[in-house]
Amino acid sequence: MNTKSIIEADLLIQAKWIIPVRPQGVVFKDHCLAIRANKIVAICPAEEVTTSINAAEKMLLDSHALIPGLINAHGHSPMSLLRGIADDISLSEWLEDSIWPLEAKFVSEKFVRHGANLAIAEMIRSGTTCFADMYFYPEQVARSALAANIRVQLASPVLDFPTVWAQDAEEYISKATRLHDDYRHSELIHTAFGPHAPYTVSDAPLLKLSTLAEEMDIPIHMHLHETAKEVSDAVAADGRTPIARLKQLGLLSPRLVCVHSTELSDEDIAMLAEAGCHVVHCPESNLKLASGFCEVGKLSKAGINVALGTDGCASNNDLDMFSEMRTAALLAKAVAADASALPAQQALEMATINGAQALGLDAQIGSLEIGKYADIAAINLDALNSMPTFNPVSQLVYATQASQVSHVWCAGQLLLEEGEFTSLDVHAIRTDTEHWRNKIAAASQLRTQPG
Amino acid sequence: MNTKSIIEADLLIQAKWIIPVRPQGVVFKDHCLAIRANKIVAICPAEEVTTSINAAEKMLLDSHALIPGLINAHGHSPMSLLRGIADDISLSEWLEDSIWPLEAKFVSEKFVRHGANLAIAEMIRSGTTCFADMYFYPEQVARSALAANIRVQLASPVLDFPTVWAQDAEEYISKATRLHDDYRHSELIHTAFGPHAPYTVSDAPLLKLSTLAEEMDIPIHMHLHETAKEVSDAVAADGRTPIARLKQLGLLSPRLVCVHSTELSDEDIAMLAEAGCHVVHCPESNLKLASGFCEVGKLSKAGINVALGTDGCASNNDLDMFSEMRTAALLAKAVAADASALPAQQALEMATINGAQALGLDAQIGSLEIGKYADIAAINLDALNSMPTFNPVSQLVYATQASQVSHVWCAGQLLLEEGEFTSLDVHAIRTDTEHWRNKIAAASQLRTQPG
Repeated sequence: MNTKSIIEADLLIQAKWIIPVRPQGVVFKDHCLAIRANKIVAICPAEEVTTSINAAEKMLLDSHALIPGLINAHGHSPMSLLRGIADDISLSEWLEDSIWPLEAKFVSEKFVRHGANLAIAEMIRSGTTCFADMYFYPEQVARSALAANIRVQLASPVLDFPTVWAQDAEEYISKATRLHDDYRHSELIHTAFGPHAPYTVSDAPLLKLSTLAEEMDIPIHMHLHETAKEVSDAVAADGRTPIARLKQLGLLSPRLVCVHSTELSDEDIAMLAEAGCHVVHCPESNLKLASGFCEVGKLSKAGINVALGTDGCASNNDLDMFSEMRTAALLAKAVAADASALPAQQALEMATINGAQALGLDAQIGSLEIGKYADIAAINLDALNSMPTFNPVSQLVYATQASQVSHVWCAGQLLLEEGEFTSLDVHAIRTDTEHWRNKIAAASQLRTQPG
Repeated sequence: MNTKSIIEADLLIQAKWIIPVRPQGVVFKDHCLAIRANKIVAICPAEEVTTSINAAEKMLLDSHALIPGLINAHGHSPMSLLRGIADDISLSEWLEDSIWPLEAKFVSEKFVRHGANLAIAEMIRSGTTCFADMYFYPEQVARSALAANIRVQLASPVLDFPTVWAQDAEEYISKATRLHDDYRHSELIHTAFGPHAPYTVSDAPLLKLSTLAEEMDIPIHMHLHETAKEVSDAVAADGRTPIARLKQLGLLSPRLVCVHSTELSDEDIAMLAEAGCHVVHCPESNLKLASGFCEVGKLSKAGINVALGTDGCASNNDLDMFSEMRTAALLAKAVAADASALPAQQALEMATINGAQALGLDAQIGSLEIGKYADIAAINLDALNSMPTFNPVSQLVYATQASQVSHVWCAGQLLLEEGEFTSLDVHAIRTDTEHWRNKIAAASQLRTQPG
């Protein structure tokens, strides 16, 4: 590269470590990353910078690691307003006795916008720059995401039965396609179909979604094999596992993003692998609802792309992808009875490039590579709990608190600087959240602790 | 209480929530806690303070929860210097190929003191005011703990074979009894015997420890049934599980603190319950080393007191009891296939009063009650990830980062104020840690990532 010309950049970041995720396993020490407009334009050793990059602004992060912005591959962002309202009960009770009645009473355009605002603030604060979201009024989540300049893939919900958002499958689908049309040229807003689960969506709408997803070139994002009961109920009803049913309907393809997938037979795994489906692992939600254990080690060995998600924070109870990486890496070892299952590097991949692949966005995000969007998080490893640092990837996965995230950029825009939001109106988010807290607490006549 | 006299106090803390842990399940809203010298002297509603308490100093923590200082019931504090040096390998490889060789090369009085200093700083920063510790040169840990004014129970190690610390069981035991004598009147330093494990300590020293522990009135703290292999090897060797062997040796009693205990038959559980033994659950270490799953729900139902520990941070990789509470609460549900197993309140009890019971210190610490030591942590629930707060106990267990700990008192002394250490020399700790990092990294010729 002796003949290279000078690269023009808006911002040059020099960091103690740059962990690009791709190429796999690489850690650059004392390197610089350059951003022009919304993209990464260079990564090079610090000592070569003066001769190769001309930057308008420079930033030195001398105890930090730069990583790709984290990708939360499954959630329900507006449910942040229901954080901690129903703990320590099973999925069916949680849904039927707590969450669905509360949603029926409170969910509105405003609830969704305010809940998404809170969730987005929490995600940016903890290094997430892209999230997959399945909830009612997705156009409100889009509005919040655009205002905050964060990337989202909106999986518009589809159900057989009426909710506040639509009356029947046809209306859900028509709203989903309209949303797609509204944002088809957006840099930050992406769409997917979000059929809720095999037990809430019948064959006809699934067949329609399969065709439309192909035509529109978007993913299908679906809760699938979340619990043993879901699978045994399905087998009892029509002799097939939900995955076998989806296969017969033609839904198994690289477009299908299967969320949870705790209960998979070897046949199920073979079908998913053969079809190139993705799995989103949500370990903390699976544990909290006692849904079961996703065998990540086994899925990875079968060649299935496994991404990572927090799920909604009413079943987690936060949107912290550092905690989720750690839980995933720890849990997979005990589940596989193999301490080498899911090493730190793989956990980081699940939270970045694997998420990008699941969402169909890996050409644009998921790693720190030239030409990709400048979606970046900086983590300060100067904390006591990060010392000594023998291996920064180990620290990020096994010993980092999300509060150590110091800077976040999405599409080149600085959203968080030294732990402070550059533009989000946090005061308004607090006020709106307190408003909903008071309303919900009064209505749900909490028998738990005083709020 | 109409005739009560005015209580004199050094400090009055008014907090949004006070969670005393005892009485069980109580949350006081907008109450005050008064400290005189090293003890708690009053807890009362904020509106009664002016007529009942005369305090030299007042502090308002208006978005905070006060809880008992957390009790980390099992660890090896100096191993903080080995954080992240050997990840993603099994317990036997981890010990035999990495940890033991590194310890043989590096462990010294200075290593222990510097490691303990780092660990103590991390623990105070994350709300821990008392820890049980098993490591060589425990007198150095005592020195660090006294300098930092944190409470510790030192389980002096006992092994059959020579290490840097002693040559044979007799020398280990004599050093342990001397340590006990040196600190028998200390307010902060407590001792216990720490026979490493059934497979590293033979019958004769165990019998001696049993007698001495009774005479000296101190606990026996031991790794026990950590893995399935430990148990099956023991059964193959002499036909008994380690617990059955300890029973025959007369070691099962309320003095015995069993650490890990992932692999317990119903008979083992019955023996522990009948004898009043305690179990220290270390979920993150058990997961990381793929040691197995401790069935906390089952143990609690059998009436066994279960405390919580991080283990050394070389197998965790931090000393964060908030993360540990959360992992314990989440994991127990999936292990029991019951989402109501180990509710948030119980996780908080494991990290406080249950730890105090295991250490034999529950008359002095473990809850916020009048007459107990003022060992207290304040957690600021004003963070985005703590909003909305319907139930502060849920937030503490399921959605709190240790960085939200704002204030810590141990025996009435303020150690952390608004997240800053009041007296610890953090600069020196950083310098010492970096010194060890460089030495260890050079010697161990890391094949992992650049440091």
